[in-house]
This record gives sequence, C-alpha cells and structure tokens, in this order.
Amino acid sequence: MTYCVAVRVDQGLVLLSDTRTNAGMDNIARFRKMFTYEVPGDRAIALMCSGNLSITQEVKTCLSRQIKISHDTPDTETILNCKTMHRVAQIVGEAMQEMQHRYRDTIEMQGAGADASILIAGQRKGGKPRLYLVYSAGNFIEATADTPFFQIGEHKYGKPILDRIIKPETTIDDAVKAVCVSMDSTLRSNLSVGMPLDLAVIDTEAFKFRVRRRIEPDDEEFAMISQGWSAALRRGFEALPNVLD
Amino acid sequence: MTYCVAVRVDQGLVLLSDTRTNAGMDNIARFRKMFTYEVPGDRAIALMCSGNLSITQEVKTCLSRQIKISHDTPDTETILNCKTMHRVAQIVGEAMQEMQHRYRDTIEMQGAGADASILIAGQRKGGKPRLYLVYSAGNFIEATADTPFFQIGEHKYGKPILDRIIKPETTIDDAVKAVCVSMDSTLRSNLSVGMPLDLAVIDTEAFKFRVRRRIEPDDEEFAMISQGWSAALRRGFEALPNVLD
Repeated sequence: MTYCVAVRVDQGLVLLSDTRTNAGMDNIARFRKMFTYEVPGDRAIALMCSGNLSITQEVKTCLSRQIKISHDTPDTETILNCKTMHRVAQIVGEAMQEMQHRYRDTIEMQGAGADASILIAGQRKGGKPRLYLVYSAGNFIEATADTPFFQIGEHKYGKPILDRIIKPETTIDDAVKAVCVSMDSTLRSNLSVGMPLDLAVIDTEAFKFRVRRRIEPDDEEFAMISQGWSAALRRGFEALPNVLD
Repeated sequence: MTYCVAVRVDQGLVLLSDTRTNAGMDNIARFRKMFTYEVPGDRAIALMCSGNLSITQEVKTCLSRQIKISHDTPDTETILNCKTMHRVAQIVGEAMQEMQHRYRDTIEMQGAGADASILIAGQRKGGKPRLYLVYSAGNFIEATADTPFFQIGEHKYGKPILDRIIKPETTIDDAVKAVCVSMDSTLRSNLSVGMPLDLAVIDTEAFKFRVRRRIEPDDEEFAMISQGWSAALRRGFEALPNVLD
C-alpha cells in the first residue's frame, strides 16, 4: 500500500509520502511516490501517487514526455507552461484517463486492480496555492477551507490527528508536525506503509520549494517527533480520569 | 458500519461497541451489537457483532433458541452449559456456518455482502479468560499475550492508541480508558460509527459482569475522556519540536 498526505494552509502547502509498494505481503519494494516540478519564480508543483504502480508511472512518463517535447515545440501544453493549477489537474486527469483506457481491462482480466489516485499541490504566479485529488476516472476535487487536507492510500490510521489539528490558519511548522505525527501513527499500525519518507514544503507566493527532503529511517528530527509524540500520548493517557469509579 | 473492540488483560476482559448500522449513507439505524450471557459464579460471556445484520441476528437467535430448548432438555448443549470457552467459540462458529450456508448465495445475488464477524469474550469457572474472533466461515482465532486485543468493523482509526497502550499487564482501568479513547477517535473520523455505546467489564475469576453499561451521548464520564484526550493531544502536539529549522 501507500500513505500520502497533503495539506493546504494559508501559509502554504505541505506534502509527505512513504515509499513502500507491495504486490502481496511477500513482494515489498521501495518506490518514490512524490515527484516535484519547479520553474523558480513561476511555479512549484508536487505530485504524489497511490494505487496501481504501472498506471501512475505511465501517467508520470506521459507528463515528462510532454515537457520534453515542449523543448522543441514550445506550443505543446505541459504542467510547466499551462495557464492555471486547475489546468494542471486537468492535464494529469487526461493522462490518467488515457492510461486507464489503455490498461484497465487487461489488468482486471488478470484479477489485479487498476485503481490509482494522484494528489497535486502547487502554486503558479498569479494564482492561489491549490490542492487537488485526481481519481482513476480522471475527474478531480479541490481542497477547500472546510477540508484543507487530502490523504490517499492507508488514510484511516493517521486521519484523527489531522481532523483535530489542520485548519487554514494552522502554521506551516504545525502542518509539518501534524503530517509527521499522522505518518508515524500509520507506520506503527500498518506494515504496508514504510520508510523512508519524502517531505516537501511550498510557501505561499514563493513559487519554489522551500523543502524537498528525504527522511531516512535514522532521521533525528523525525525520531524526535515520533518519540516525543509517544511520550506525550503516554502522559496524556495517564492524566485521563478513570471511567469506572 | 460498526466499531467493536475487546481487550484481554491479566486483570480481565473489557468490551466496547457502538450501535450504528447503515444500509447506505441515507439509511442509518441504531442496533445493539453487544450481547451478554451470565450464570453468576459459573461464567460470564459477551458477544459483539459486525457485518451483515441479518446474519448476526440469526446467529444470536440460534444461540438463544438452544438456551431455551435446554430448559426442557438439559442435555442440549448451549454456550451457557458447554464445557469450555473454546467450545463456546465453536458453537458460535457453527451457528455462523449454518446462517452463511442458508443465506449467503441469495444475499450475494442481490449484490449485498454476507460477511460478518463476532467477538467472544468470557471466562467460565475452571478456565482462563478467553477472547475469540469468529469469522464468516465459522473459523476463529484467539487473542494471546502478543496480541491482547481484537477489533471488528471500522478498526483503523482507533488502532494506533491500542497498539501503544494495551499489554497483558495493563490494568482494567487503563484498558477501559484505552478503548474509550480508541472509540472517541473513530467516532470523530467516521460517520458510520455512532453513539450510544455499550461497555462491559468482566474481572478475572469473578464469573460475572462487573460492568454492563450503556454510554449515552450526554454521558459525563465519556465526555471527560473525550475532552481530556483532545486537550492532551493539543498540549502534546504543541510541545513537539519543529521538524524544519
């Protein structure tokens, strides 16, 4: 499986993904699920993928091919030159539709699943920071002030802390802590989600990445979050009143 | 959906269930999912059900019918007179098999799911406290010191806190707090799980229930757990170090 989470707060966009993929319990591998695209001063965009790996890799290849072609024929529309983040989501959705059309029937004939989903977070100059969730059908939804975060993959373990913490006015620092805690809970409870992690941060109106960081299993700052959270939970739990008296 | 959790610690057995059932998002109802059976001084047994409601109700009816018949023909084996908790799990499993055999094909022809599962916790005089999970196929597993709790239904939201807290040496009071926190996280994040709740506690070597309590939405002690946990999470979160410096 996979766990990816993206948050859109007033101060910017925060993304965190794991790297574990599995075809059955006995076939575990490591694949990057976060991909970043940047034209400094113009736009910064990050994609995170879950679901059928062959589908999401093909979507990514399709986006890269468009970018490569546009070097010779600048009229070619790509996620790096299109006019809006909304159009970026459409372009990713169109690539998703194409790959589903090409492979879904044969994948399902083999008894496997072709479902996939992609989170897109970014801002281009002249627009607002946007966060989209693209489904297998190529359709998509956008995060709003009411629901300022999206999760894909194994989302349930790490949802309670996000429900409690994330609001539009949450700071970037707190959003980073919250996605780390959310990931930590998921890592502890589900073997199909695994280290290392990929973290990205895009500040509002920066049009570039402030952070693109791989978090390895021995990362000291992530370990402090993980251990600090364990200790805080234990202290908080011990301070709760007894239900039975 | 449903969320039921049962814990077996050295001091005894703790069970907590919600009461929400739904057939689609627009057809929500309230059904008790916990059923208790007691022969004071001899045995105390609690069942909790999830999955297809018609199947689990029929399993329960089957167990009740056996008990009723045994009043006239004491040789009839029931969960109240059988020799071991292991045999209780077998009897429940046999009832499950019978109902699956009777209804599964026709339920699935209608496009609905016939899966169901039942948690059984109890102790009979001369035996140890036992906790079993009975699957749709009638087979079952028993909780051990390595895995001293079972969950059925919407189990993921509330699993992280149990993974951290529950060990065989956890006290009954802490086990009750832990299942309440686990349920609280699930209630907050998933609409298909809802109040009121049913709580039961069986102390080791008591052979009767210490607690059989319905927790209504205005229950003051549950509210203190819920609010206390929210406050503790917030304090703990604020005390975490920043990841980005």
